[in-house]
Amino acid sequence: MTGWTDEVEAAVEAVRADVARLHAELVRYGLVVWTAGNVSGRVPGADLFVIKPSGVSYDDLTPESMIVCDLDGHAVPGTPGSERSPSSDTAAHAYVYREMPEVGGVVHTHSTYAVGWAARNEEIPCVVTAMADEFGGPVPIGPFAIIGDDSIGRGIVETLRGHRSRAVLMANHGPFTIGVTAKDAVKAAVMVEDVARTVEIARQGGPLVPIPQDAIDKLYDRYQNVYGQASDDRR
Amino acid sequence: MTGWTDEVEAAVEAVRADVARLHAELVRYGLVVWTAGNVSGRVPGADLFVIKPSGVSYDDLTPESMIVCDLDGHAVPGTPGSERSPSSDTAAHAYVYREMPEVGGVVHTHSTYAVGWAARNEEIPCVVTAMADEFGGPVPIGPFAIIGDDSIGRGIVETLRGHRSRAVLMANHGPFTIGVTAKDAVKAAVMVEDVARTVEIARQGGPLVPIPQDAIDKLYDRYQNVYGQASDDRR
Amino acid sequence: MTGWTDEVEAAVEAVRADVARLHAELVRYGLVVWTAGNVSGRVPGADLFVIKPSGVSYDDLTPESMIVCDLDGHAVPGTPGSERSPSSDTAAHAYVYREMPEVGGVVHTHSTYAVGWAARNEEIPCVVTAMADEFGGPVPIGPFAIIGDDSIGRGIVETLRGHRSRAVLMANHGPFTIGVTAKDAVKAAVMVEDVARTVEIARQGGPLVPIPQDAIDKLYDRYQNVYGQASDDRR
Amino acid sequence: MTGWTDEVEAAVEAVRADVARLHAELVRYGLVVWTAGNVSGRVPGADLFVIKPSGVSYDDLTPESMIVCDLDGHAVPGTPGSERSPSSDTAAHAYVYREMPEVGGVVHTHSTYAVGWAARNEEIPCVVTAMADEFGGPVPIGPFAIIGDDSIGRGIVETLRGHRSRAVLMANHGPFTIGVTAKDAVKAAVMVEDVARTVEIARQGGPLVPIPQDAIDKLYDRYQNVYGQASDDRR
Repeated sequence: MTGWTDEVEAAVEAVRADVARLHAELVRYGLVVWTAGNVSGRVPGADLFVIKPSGVSYDDLTPESMIVCDLDGHAVPGTPGSERSPSSDTAAHAYVYREMPEVGGVVHTHSTYAVGWAARNEEIPCVVTAMADEFGGPVPIGPFAIIGDDSIGRGIVETLRGHRSRAVLMANHGPFTIGVTAKDAVKAAVMVEDVARTVEIARQGGPLVPIPQDAIDKLYDRYQNVYGQASDDRR
Repeated sequence: MTGWTDEVEAAVEAVRADVARLHAELVRYGLVVWTAGNVSGRVPGADLFVIKPSGVSYDDLTPESMIVCDLDGHAVPGTPGSERSPSSDTAAHAYVYREMPEVGGVVHTHSTYAVGWAARNEEIPCVVTAMADEFGGPVPIGPFAIIGDDSIGRGIVETLRGHRSRAVLMANHGPFTIGVTAKDAVKAAVMVEDVARTVEIARQGGPLVPIPQDAIDKLYDRYQNVYGQASDDRR
Repeated sequence: MTGWTDEVEAAVEAVRADVARLHAELVRYGLVVWTAGNVSGRVPGADLFVIKPSGVSYDDLTPESMIVCDLDGHAVPGTPGSERSPSSDTAAHAYVYREMPEVGGVVHTHSTYAVGWAARNEEIPCVVTAMADEFGGPVPIGPFAIIGDDSIGRGIVETLRGHRSRAVLMANHGPFTIGVTAKDAVKAAVMVEDVARTVEIARQGGPLVPIPQDAIDKLYDRYQNVYGQASDDRR
Repeated sequence: MTGWTDEVEAAVEAVRADVARLHAELVRYGLVVWTAGNVSGRVPGADLFVIKPSGVSYDDLTPESMIVCDLDGHAVPGTPGSERSPSSDTAAHAYVYREMPEVGGVVHTHSTYAVGWAARNEEIPCVVTAMADEFGGPVPIGPFAIIGDDSIGRGIVETLRGHRSRAVLMANHGPFTIGVTAKDAVKAAVMVEDVARTVEIARQGGPLVPIPQDAIDKLYDRYQNVYGQASDDRR
């Protein structure tokens, strides 16, 4: 029906399971309430990605209810889930997959502290080593853009292309994160809220001490190359 | 005994189950402690609504322990649960159902951040897109009114009638939310605490950047008409 | 061995079970970490109370591990648990039971926000209706007193005797609450942290609006006499 | 293969189980997100310690996946887990075990409020009795040091040697804690976040009242010698 090869069929099934399961991490880490956040994952070897249906409770997500989209963000007709609407943020995810072939996963949440910085249109300064490790410097602010066309996707790509950070705080909106896999993008979503919260709370108590740029550079370089196990999916 | 038709009997049973279950969402999202919050739901096709008994633990709520009330807020004699006192906020819920026929559910909590704005008698400014989506602008403050007569109900109705927001922060008291169904009102209770927390934390860190009014209007319009699945119970 | 009547034996067993179980509420509401909080309950009809053993994890509490003490705070020899040390706060609980015969339960925690007010030696002002309901006005500060003699117990009694509030914030230390039963004292511990958190967060965002004294009086009177079910153990 | 005596084999197995299990306490108390924290425990009677593998989820930790290291921080070849990389903080743990023979456990986290004080390079003042009990005074700041050599370990030891506190906040990085056992170090990690949070929140609301030094001394002395059960592993 879809004309997919067996390899693509198998890859789609694997990404469906992965993306469905990863939404539970958004819940576990308190990044989402009700239905306000979404994960997508690119299907390796195909111009496809898998994303959450719109407005569906995290309790009700199954691999079959995930929606397979082409890179224009349209559900592939005849596939399970395609009778429902995909996430209202699908156009932004699709734009990122079209423009950044190295990206394998995209996550969007309205996590509290990250949205706080976004509401002030203020980047998160790099004052803790965990942030240097994970984001290599400040987490940037993206432009104010509203849903309905490509402007959110464009804002994400323009901000993150060539940037060390794989998280952007879209102004007055919230964080979008990217990764080499969907899991890596979820990790970035977890870590951006963690640093947003830590730095917010730290600064409310008094002046922050900056980290020297050369220390930030060393930490970022080391973390990207040494941390974790050899089999990890980090860049 | 109650003289209800089979249709009304069936509708009452359905609303009892729904309202009992929805209280668990207040607990899940941390909106209530001990017994301090309540959900009610209108019975479609009858001048009745179903509400929580007063001062009973959320662990002990069952469909049968819910109380069926008429629109004056009196328990219907001879129905299960009618031997107990309904929520001490029943008069306020009843007033809303009498005056706003479009309302199918009402929720009241003392959720932390929403009460914080209420303790300052300060509306929540609309500085994040999720708030424009959900409430179409600021969340308003209602009058100071104390329990014991219709003044809380009147304050809710006077504030929310004709307003985009389906949440009101009653001064020095806390949030009341309305919805087309009980679930929709619970969603509003979850979202009002989420935006109350986010905007509070954002502002403690520095000046907020407002969202232009025309962007708020577009976001609200889109969310009311496009978001979610066609079968959803949103307005 | 203890020479207790069957009635006292039965009452001791009931209070052991109740006190063991109620510690789980301290955990559920996030009032304690590690082993830093304790509940006790008076044995009706006897000069005895039941309290937690010192430094034992909440996971490991059973009715049998609770310790039965006389009103001087000494474990009753030969009873289950008496081979262990009772809570290091036992002397303070005992003092309250000796001096306030109307008290049936005592709770002590180091809950975050309540300790925050205590570290500033500042009473919590009554600016939300839930606080007027529950505490009838501000939650008072008790004297600075350190563990080792009767000074903590004396500070609790001198502050709470004749006061509407059944919670006191001991200076630089934390909240102690009393109730007509152990459950009622646990409720007060839950509610004092809830109002401590809400009022702290509210005030960090700007000036608070006070509630008029006559409204506080009406709310307190109503809540003590009308709220909940007729069978409840509230004063 | 390892040439260990039966006693050492048994001790290694016990510490593996203990260290694996104790990581769950970091999760329970909200001290860690993703994989960002680690516990180690010294093997009694041997120049060995057991530590978490690098970048592995807390859900996936088992006794067998823990890594046994010598006091230079190298995995012992041929032991279960030795094919993986140990925690990227292993060199710091090893340094502490080499230099402080009285230490039986080390914990590192990025817990939010403790990192907040670290980002300001500010010690936590001793204004609550729980802190006097547990740490005997302020929790100190250690030097800024980045991963890759002995400088973190050296900073920990230079700060904590001869100090009452068994927690140090490494500047712009986060807390390291030590204990007579791994469990004792975990307790210190839990308590340092608890006091970091409480004192931060207290101070955001207004000026703190100090505790007199002689009261701090008495509290610390009493807690080290009287609190808990005789069988406890506290110093």
